[in-house]
Amino acid sequence: MLSTTMALRSFIAPVTSRVLGSSYIAARSCHHHKKGSKVAVVLSGSGVYDGSEIHEASAILVHLSRGGAETSIFAPDKPQMHVINHNKGEPMEGETRNVLVESGRIARGEISPLVDLKASDFDAIVFPGGFGAAKNLCTFAVDGTKCSIDPDVERVIKEFHTEKKPIGLCCIAPVLAAKVIQNCEITVGHDTEDGGKWPYAGTAAAVEELGAKHVNKSVTDIHVDETNNIVTTPAFMCQTHLHEIYDGIGEMVSTVLHRVK
Amino acid sequence: MLSTTMALRSFIAPVTSRVLGSSYIAARSCHHHKKGSKVAVVLSGSGVYDGSEIHEASAILVHLSRGGAETSIFAPDKPQMHVINHNKGEPMEGETRNVLVESGRIARGEISPLVDLKASDFDAIVFPGGFGAAKNLCTFAVDGTKCSIDPDVERVIKEFHTEKKPIGLCCIAPVLAAKVIQNCEITVGHDTEDGGKWPYAGTAAAVEELGAKHVNKSVTDIHVDETNNIVTTPAFMCQTHLHEIYDGIGEMVSTVLHRVK
Repeated sequence: MLSTTMALRSFIAPVTSRVLGSSYIAARSCHHHKKGSKVAVVLSGSGVYDGSEIHEASAILVHLSRGGAETSIFAPDKPQMHVINHNKGEPMEGETRNVLVESGRIARGEISPLVDLKASDFDAIVFPGGFGAAKNLCTFAVDGTKCSIDPDVERVIKEFHTEKKPIGLCCIAPVLAAKVIQNCEITVGHDTEDGGKWPYAGTAAAVEELGAKHVNKSVTDIHVDETNNIVTTPAFMCQTHLHEIYDGIGEMVSTVLHRVK
Repeated sequence: MLSTTMALRSFIAPVTSRVLGSSYIAARSCHHHKKGSKVAVVLSGSGVYDGSEIHEASAILVHLSRGGAETSIFAPDKPQMHVINHNKGEPMEGETRNVLVESGRIARGEISPLVDLKASDFDAIVFPGGFGAAKNLCTFAVDGTKCSIDPDVERVIKEFHTEKKPIGLCCIAPVLAAKVIQNCEITVGHDTEDGGKWPYAGTAAAVEELGAKHVNKSVTDIHVDETNNIVTTPAFMCQTHLHEIYDGIGEMVSTVLHRVK
């Protein structure tokens, strides 16, 4: 039997070694699609109101793991636009946090700066949503259709698009594709609120103003832009049960993996 | 077609209204167990090294949603023991964060102070792991078997135990049960490292020093203490693929729901 001290050291060690982080790198075989696809996931912080939506990010990573993908996580190394107290729904005065550092909470420390992401190293790319995608990856949350986009986000989307590699996005993240890839087709859910089920329904019109075609889809469904190899699903654009969001993201991820050449 | 301003307002509004938070409250029927079980989930921050392990917390909430539970989320309203830069694996000097506020990132703002949790209002309770469970809910991460436990954590575990309601825990969180409920049976995975698969294997010995019986289990398996109505699964105590952790937590959650009277 190990001593208490041993037990304690053994429990605490991975704080610095981060040994568990590599558990995201799955190498299992899968008969549905190319084995061991290399997929980049781009985060924008950690928390729906100022970063990546945590459950969307986690669902993406679970489904990629089950699909046998080798996943690498990236985020921009820059300050967040806001730090939101999620319980009060308002900014925390005087707080500043870094997108890469906070995204590391979801990535369990295994994350790289977005500037290092090159499409040539990967088979596909996936973006979860959350306000971070509309605040830190572009400025849609404050500037709407007049938004600017993070230069590295624009670069990597263009690279994957040029190399005809699949691009998966959910929730509000499809606005990134709408902004960068002219005339692409995406879904951000429904274009009418439908009694509160689609509280962000107006986003569909904004997407069309950006030059994209919007397609209404339910939360467990996806839209595939065959021409541009873009796969989108509404996720938390819909007010619904968490497991339905998880399942819609599962459809998006498995379709992305299926489309890897 | 809505104007850009309308679209933008519609997209931003839920920051303050938090309308999406209620999506955690699922009311679907399920033939496997009592419908609409009321389950309390206790968080300890947001991020594996100083709070709740994010993927464990998210998996618990997805499985509770699928099981038709009505879920309410709680966390202690107090400062975190540490604020860890997850990418560097070291404390962020001068930073302080509040457990309830940071847990709100996982809860999407729909969370209550742990002091308000009463077992009489719920059918079951579930604790995800992460170092927050061993730093903010008790002091096991620094004090080992000499740890103290948060008074409200101790109170709620005793209440659910006294009322014979199921208690689910994963990862390192079972040490809370070992500390509070004498002679209970739990798993924290395996008691040997097995070539790095179980990096925290020494915890099993510490659990026995606390007076509990430890039972070795694989990551997709659970242990049920029939006498004390405690259901545990190793989760991130195991170095493995994320979807296996998700599946083990699914077993734990469905068993907890199944045991609701």
